[in-house]
Amino acid sequence: MVKYKKIAQEITNYIVDNQMKRHDKLPVIDEMAIDFNASKSTIVKALDILEAKGQIYQVQGSGIFVRDVYIPGKINLNRPEGLSRTLVGATIVSRVVKVEIIKPNATIQEYLECDPDEDIYMVERTRYIKGEIHSYEKSYFRKKYVRYMNEQIARGSIFTYLEDNLDLTPSFSNAFFQVKQMGVEVASYLECSPETYGLELINQFFLSNGAIFDYSVLWYSPDHAKFFVPSNFY
Amino acid sequence: MVKYKKIAQEITNYIVDNQMKRHDKLPVIDEMAIDFNASKSTIVKALDILEAKGQIYQVQGSGIFVRDVYIPGKINLNRPEGLSRTLVGATIVSRVVKVEIIKPNATIQEYLECDPDEDIYMVERTRYIKGEIHSYEKSYFRKKYVRYMNEQIARGSIFTYLEDNLDLTPSFSNAFFQVKQMGVEVASYLECSPETYGLELINQFFLSNGAIFDYSVLWYSPDHAKFFVPSNFY
Repeated sequence: MVKYKKIAQEITNYIVDNQMKRHDKLPVIDEMAIDFNASKSTIVKALDILEAKGQIYQVQGSGIFVRDVYIPGKINLNRPEGLSRTLVGATIVSRVVKVEIIKPNATIQEYLECDPDEDIYMVERTRYIKGEIHSYEKSYFRKKYVRYMNEQIARGSIFTYLEDNLDLTPSFSNAFFQVKQMGVEVASYLECSPETYGLELINQFFLSNGAIFDYSVLWYSPDHAKFFVPSNFY
Repeated sequence: MVKYKKIAQEITNYIVDNQMKRHDKLPVIDEMAIDFNASKSTIVKALDILEAKGQIYQVQGSGIFVRDVYIPGKINLNRPEGLSRTLVGATIVSRVVKVEIIKPNATIQEYLECDPDEDIYMVERTRYIKGEIHSYEKSYFRKKYVRYMNEQIARGSIFTYLEDNLDLTPSFSNAFFQVKQMGVEVASYLECSPETYGLELINQFFLSNGAIFDYSVLWYSPDHAKFFVPSNFY
């Protein structure tokens, strides 16, 4: 990863770790250059990136201020790093319903941009926060990229496994969402009646070369389906 | 606006105008420098911004490719420029229910970060696409910034009016959303029963100095509540 992106990530971590809130002021550029061990021009570039991503705003002659990077209980869809890193402070427990190898149907082929004869790892999980059901997830990984998967791995953070053990680095993602009736299967996991409307969130995860390696369908129980997206006008 | 942000916006317009799709290749940097009448370093900076915003991806040695900037029928929440510019190709008709000056209650004060005795323009509108109800919106503008408003203005694009006539430039925004029961008032406008669950979208709009000038609550009829958020991992 190029230096300015790494620094941008470190500044984000600094904001989250210090639980900085909207309008809180960041140190001046000279100070950040020392703190983050980078040149001033790298800091400036990192800040431009963070501004574009909606994490800070820069007021000429006044300073650099934090936006809503982290809001307790709400999921920032501009930070696709997985629930455990987005819902800061919450302990998430994953229960694995199933891990199996399947052939993709038409929908899966479309979302994964893959051939019908490819092997796909299907991982089905439920997520709990403080013992309460939080979400239900079905993920599809192309075996071409995710060469091995099992239940034990799926109980932890799959993305951490991919990065640490398979050298697979997610680069970018799409989130699609809409309000839909849950249906029988989803409702049973989320402990609702099948007519209940919930938020269906579909994610596509891309590698740096543009290939899609993971597609997932997530359903949130209504109480936990609270999201936000910081963005800007250019 | 600094040059590289302007160029970033022009490249986005180029992508949208040409209805470019995921994985479509953009011209090489030399060519873009000529097409957009900018230096190569400005193009590079604009591309880094667009990458951070999830609109393109750059593959070393291979080229610069488009991501999902524009998907027919879906609203890109990373492009907060208003419905008419996000839902490309759709003709949106706004009907004004009410425009009045009010004093803010506790919720409005919190979202607008304003004092209880400030004057607020409340604008209530319904939106239609092809004669069908699309959404219901209540917006609150601080009169301190939006000095004048009436029904005729509210029938058009309020943001175009603010920029062209009041010299007010929105700089960034927050979108919050959750699944909720509509309740009697919203359901009557969206032609649903009050128990219907819909997507409630709350927006906060900021000026470049960090002040909030507009806060709005939007309800989408379930069929039209289709959103996406492109993002990335740094």
